[in-house]
Amino acid sequence: MKLHNYFRSSASFRVRIALELKGLPYDYRAVHLVKGEHKQPDFAAVTASALVPALETDEGAVLSQSMAIIEYLDETHPNPPLLPKDPLGRARVRALAQLIACEIHPLNNLRVLKYLVREMKVEEEAKNTWYRHWVRSGLEMFEQELQRLPASPYCHGDAPTLADCCLVPQIFNGQRFNVDMAGLPRTMGAFEACMKLPAFQKAQPSNCPDNEG
Amino acid sequence: MKLHNYFRSSASFRVRIALELKGLPYDYRAVHLVKGEHKQPDFAAVTASALVPALETDEGAVLSQSMAIIEYLDETHPNPPLLPKDPLGRARVRALAQLIACEIHPLNNLRVLKYLVREMKVEEEAKNTWYRHWVRSGLEMFEQELQRLPASPYCHGDAPTLADCCLVPQIFNGQRFNVDMAGLPRTMGAFEACMKLPAFQKAQPSNCPDNEG
Repeated sequence: MKLHNYFRSSASFRVRIALELKGLPYDYRAVHLVKGEHKQPDFAAVTASALVPALETDEGAVLSQSMAIIEYLDETHPNPPLLPKDPLGRARVRALAQLIACEIHPLNNLRVLKYLVREMKVEEEAKNTWYRHWVRSGLEMFEQELQRLPASPYCHGDAPTLADCCLVPQIFNGQRFNVDMAGLPRTMGAFEACMKLPAFQKAQPSNCPDNEG
Repeated sequence: MKLHNYFRSSASFRVRIALELKGLPYDYRAVHLVKGEHKQPDFAAVTASALVPALETDEGAVLSQSMAIIEYLDETHPNPPLLPKDPLGRARVRALAQLIACEIHPLNNLRVLKYLVREMKVEEEAKNTWYRHWVRSGLEMFEQELQRLPASPYCHGDAPTLADCCLVPQIFNGQRFNVDMAGLPRTMGAFEACMKLPAFQKAQPSNCPDNEG
């Protein structure tokens, strides 16, 4: 498999975690978003939507959207599972993942921040306030959801799931923009538990071949 | 089942379509987002994140996040299926759904538009330009993805799926803000095919009990 991705992309990081948790080897193909490499013909030939991550399977299919890719990996390589077996547990884990992937991250990705600055002439400080607002308010919702679930070292159950694959990159991202992480005990507890595992360590941006420090 | 939702919420509309496609009866519980009813204690008692839609199952569990709810309905009431049976097809359908639910809709929901106006002092016209930019550019990506898939009256295959449950509300939403829908033949073809079906007709905002016209 080939993973077209960018070291600092949260959505790419989610898929790298899933691949590491499942012990699946992959070719790392760097696509430098800040340099606009995703808009070059080479990458357009790979994926229609010009978004990273994109996973090329050994059969030559190209998959997009990080949560869809992770579910595909989970269905084709079921061990260890990244979703619970029961429908209610699966719904809980997917909802946690989507709380991050649909409510927080989309507001803060690179093309949105660029639009704020270039098209809307938003100042640096207002852009950073926007960023921190959505991460903090989103993580507060996330914490509220976790607080209603049974105690667990991770987001759900006794092993990392799709929800943790989404949470960890979001925390990295927020920390880079100095988001206040106080008062989120379940959330930060899950983050810290994950970061003790080799899969999360290996997948992190600082261990990527295209890492710029 | 009880569906806490709002007639104009795209994410609520997605779940209403899925419930209608599966022929599942439900109590319609209106939560008026513009009046802030989602922030009232009544609704906070139901759901931790104060987001609609929220589905209360007959067993009393409360589920959040529209795509997670739809997958739960698909797993607990498999007919008609809203996802293909093969992992690759499932990945395709989920990616199409997520292209809308993660790349387009989050930038245009009510709380984001409110933040732009109230906190960032963005003018009405710039807000509408923002709105149309993300819908149009997102639907162009969606069209590119559809163009790479085999011909189909719907988004994928010969019956509506999770992807159509997400597409149709996004088109309604875009039309309300006068987004140009020209040059999107597969996308608009799928929309029109869906709107010929009673399930999509019944679920639309104008047929909701809290519709304000």
